[in-house]
Amino acid sequence: MTSDTLTAPAEAAGFHSINAATGQPVGEAFTSHGPADVDAACAFAEAAFDTYRATDRETRAAFLESIAAEILEIGDELIVTAMRESGLPRARLEGERGRTIGQLKMFADVVRGGEWLGLRIDPALPERQPLPRPDLRLRMIPLGPVAVFGASNFPLAFSTAGGDTASALAAGCPVVVKGHPAHPATGALVAAAITRAVAKADLPKGVFQHLVGPGNDLGAALVQDPRITAVGFTGSRGGGLALVRLAQGRPVPVPVYAEMSSINPVILFPHALKARGADLGKAFVGSLTMGAGQFCTNPGLVLAIEGEGLDAFVSAAAEALGASVGATMLTKGIQNAYNEGVTALEKHPRVETVARGNSGEGVTCGQAAFFSTEAKAFLSDDALGHEVFGASSLLVRCRDEAELAEVIAKAEGQLTATLQMDAEDEALAARLLPILERKAGRILANGWPTGVEVTHAMVHGGPFPATSDGRTTSVGSLAIDRFLRPVSYQNLAPALLPAELRDGAEGLPHLVDGKRN
Amino acid sequence: MTSDTLTAPAEAAGFHSINAATGQPVGEAFTSHGPADVDAACAFAEAAFDTYRATDRETRAAFLESIAAEILEIGDELIVTAMRESGLPRARLEGERGRTIGQLKMFADVVRGGEWLGLRIDPALPERQPLPRPDLRLRMIPLGPVAVFGASNFPLAFSTAGGDTASALAAGCPVVVKGHPAHPATGALVAAAITRAVAKADLPKGVFQHLVGPGNDLGAALVQDPRITAVGFTGSRGGGLALVRLAQGRPVPVPVYAEMSSINPVILFPHALKARGADLGKAFVGSLTMGAGQFCTNPGLVLAIEGEGLDAFVSAAAEALGASVGATMLTKGIQNAYNEGVTALEKHPRVETVARGNSGEGVTCGQAAFFSTEAKAFLSDDALGHEVFGASSLLVRCRDEAELAEVIAKAEGQLTATLQMDAEDEALAARLLPILERKAGRILANGWPTGVEVTHAMVHGGPFPATSDGRTTSVGSLAIDRFLRPVSYQNLAPALLPAELRDGAEGLPHLVDGKRN
Repeated sequence: MTSDTLTAPAEAAGFHSINAATGQPVGEAFTSHGPADVDAACAFAEAAFDTYRATDRETRAAFLESIAAEILEIGDELIVTAMRESGLPRARLEGERGRTIGQLKMFADVVRGGEWLGLRIDPALPERQPLPRPDLRLRMIPLGPVAVFGASNFPLAFSTAGGDTASALAAGCPVVVKGHPAHPATGALVAAAITRAVAKADLPKGVFQHLVGPGNDLGAALVQDPRITAVGFTGSRGGGLALVRLAQGRPVPVPVYAEMSSINPVILFPHALKARGADLGKAFVGSLTMGAGQFCTNPGLVLAIEGEGLDAFVSAAAEALGASVGATMLTKGIQNAYNEGVTALEKHPRVETVARGNSGEGVTCGQAAFFSTEAKAFLSDDALGHEVFGASSLLVRCRDEAELAEVIAKAEGQLTATLQMDAEDEALAARLLPILERKAGRILANGWPTGVEVTHAMVHGGPFPATSDGRTTSVGSLAIDRFLRPVSYQNLAPALLPAELRDGAEGLPHLVDGKRN
Repeated sequence: MTSDTLTAPAEAAGFHSINAATGQPVGEAFTSHGPADVDAACAFAEAAFDTYRATDRETRAAFLESIAAEILEIGDELIVTAMRESGLPRARLEGERGRTIGQLKMFADVVRGGEWLGLRIDPALPERQPLPRPDLRLRMIPLGPVAVFGASNFPLAFSTAGGDTASALAAGCPVVVKGHPAHPATGALVAAAITRAVAKADLPKGVFQHLVGPGNDLGAALVQDPRITAVGFTGSRGGGLALVRLAQGRPVPVPVYAEMSSINPVILFPHALKARGADLGKAFVGSLTMGAGQFCTNPGLVLAIEGEGLDAFVSAAAEALGASVGATMLTKGIQNAYNEGVTALEKHPRVETVARGNSGEGVTCGQAAFFSTEAKAFLSDDALGHEVFGASSLLVRCRDEAELAEVIAKAEGQLTATLQMDAEDEALAARLLPILERKAGRILANGWPTGVEVTHAMVHGGPFPATSDGRTTSVGSLAIDRFLRPVSYQNLAPALLPAELRDGAEGLPHLVDGKRN
């Protein structure tokens, strides 16, 4: 929320932007928003909804493109600020800015294309017996104001102007962002850019607002406000489940799209292991340690059947990991949780530590870790299947295909499942695929899960607890569907029908009597 | 569930089919299923899932058509049995059977058409800089075994082989029906017909199973079984919310599509009232009393601005209602709840009884009721907005447009909103439409809400508490989407890709790079 629309309560505590590498505060304190600010923001969002959702597709698309332009316009200050607050390197953040802008532009194209409107027309059948059939027309409409929780691990692409914000705005929903307290200065720069785009498009200010604060009360108040109609969240399992409970406990429950917890199994198939075990070990560590392992799709679980090449994989991974240098983690809290998770694995009686990385410079560096255990141990201890957010991974050695299948079936829902396989592994892969499809939102072969393309066929989602709602995705154009619901219009006069459902509204994709036009 | 797959526990109590008109038991007792039966049924459903979801579209479509044929094959025994158990008249049940068969055939066509697969292909871009783009392909897959709760008020079209069963089977999900205890004999006939279709199609018996019992424990056990992945329900608000709570409390929560509570406001616009108030009053009573008022879309709320024609509407409605004869209600329990609701309105200090119908013959007849109140009273008492299931309706008299808008905005989520309007009312209707769109799943003009077409553009759904999930519909072809989730395949070898996503799989609708093929 822009400062001119909010009055911070007198008792509000300030909080600071923290330099991730040093743990030291930077600059002036940010004012924490409180319940009165939530109330004001939701009132503005509600007031803006009907105006915003009535924008024509071109206006809305141009608005999304204008947000992208305003973000780029911030210039290097955005990159430098995000580097300081997140500890992530320049190249990564420049890439992430590109992605943020790219997904705004993608949604602009999506809005123009009109597939998301889901138009359906069943013309009247006045002669039908025993009763005439009325004229029925359907479109998708936006749900209403959406609360978006910025994520710490993508301070640009999953935060203030990230995928949830872009898809909700594309759907026609005003957005109230609860900025992540780990990057308030980055968030403020981006929020100001969006606010400029809102003003330039002459839209109501309630279309986008930004609330910040260090505690959980702010987010809780936002999710419980009756004017909020859906919630987007990327973060911890505990945080996501807490928001789900709050949303379900409302007098009128609302959907929460929480992307929470995934360990992203990588399956090393026998022939691939035999042919290139060492290469796979080295590449695996590259994916594991990228961005200090702070990806939702980080490969936290490696599955293999005992056999030729597995030792070579382990040796190469150990060597690469042993040479790795710890990178700055996003926050002290994340580092602490990471260290706790790693320590628990180190002390686990049935887990062997294969290798640890070097500690790196700086107070919040994450030291990479690779562990190994037997399938029997994994199958008998749920804790071994829990996410350790950061560059930690566990190899599970299986005796045979049956045990491998059992481990996969036992694993919780995942964002991704990765197959490292050769042509000779296809028969085994085909047998495992039906199990994998039920576990994961994306199945990829001979790559690493950490790259998530922002396209139309992407699914960044998956069965619980990967997300709270496995019927959707938070990346890619399908994400717009989360913020829409169908409305049917029966025998409405043309003047009352939405423009896109009137006769002669050409050029938009739609079904007529269930058949594509 | 078919009897050969189940062993009823020794302590299971039997229960009887009840003649709705006399309240007397008919024939032999039905054996109640218990927890062991739920466990067995879910095991069969789980075992059948991969085989069933792998059926090609033609096989699955033919199976749905075969179910329709087997239901028709039962002949008049089905109609006579349903008449006896529900108290509904022959013409209604013959029509309902036609609808049941029609929706199975519609879903067969939907399955063949392939829109539901949501196919998307983003081809690889090997030359893209700085990194190549992988090949990404998306399809929708079925969630897994689905629990369907039969509804009492549509013993055919919303019950054993009703819309939820048809759409779940169309999606590729095995179905376990919890039959409604108000029509066990009807349910058994239909379940046997589906079981015959399963056998003829050489499908695993777990594709369809039917469990029966009089209490709530059976349904609770079913919803909590870890193999159940989604739930379809039509019934009371209390029942639906109980199932939602159970499903949300599972270690792995699952979606519940509960269609629960709606009073379906009918707005009488000033010019329409003036031109045809008396005609509207008479037609309104026709819709209100049809099927003893036991429709989810029954017009339980009438809204009008004080003015010319309103008295004529009320007089005509009072006259028609006064001449109405109570029809047999579905169960004694429903009759009791109806009588309690009506009595509460009769005794309400700010509600006037406009008219009561005649009591009718038989022990469970529902006596129609029409009440009137002021907008101020409605706005100050939430109870006046609650559903009274049966032929009861409340007229809310508003002073002006502002008050009318306030009443609509205060109302809970609805399945339908009806506009009785003339051309001169269009400006007012246009102002109210944005409010109505946020309240209801279907907006209809100059008809009555009780007719629900089974087509592609139908929405039988709506914001809470009309349903537990306003993003969907339980009638019409869009209902299939409730039981699907997206999976993305990245760089998979052609042999591993689902057939419908392989290159050269022509004839199926899909998006390529977000554009329609």
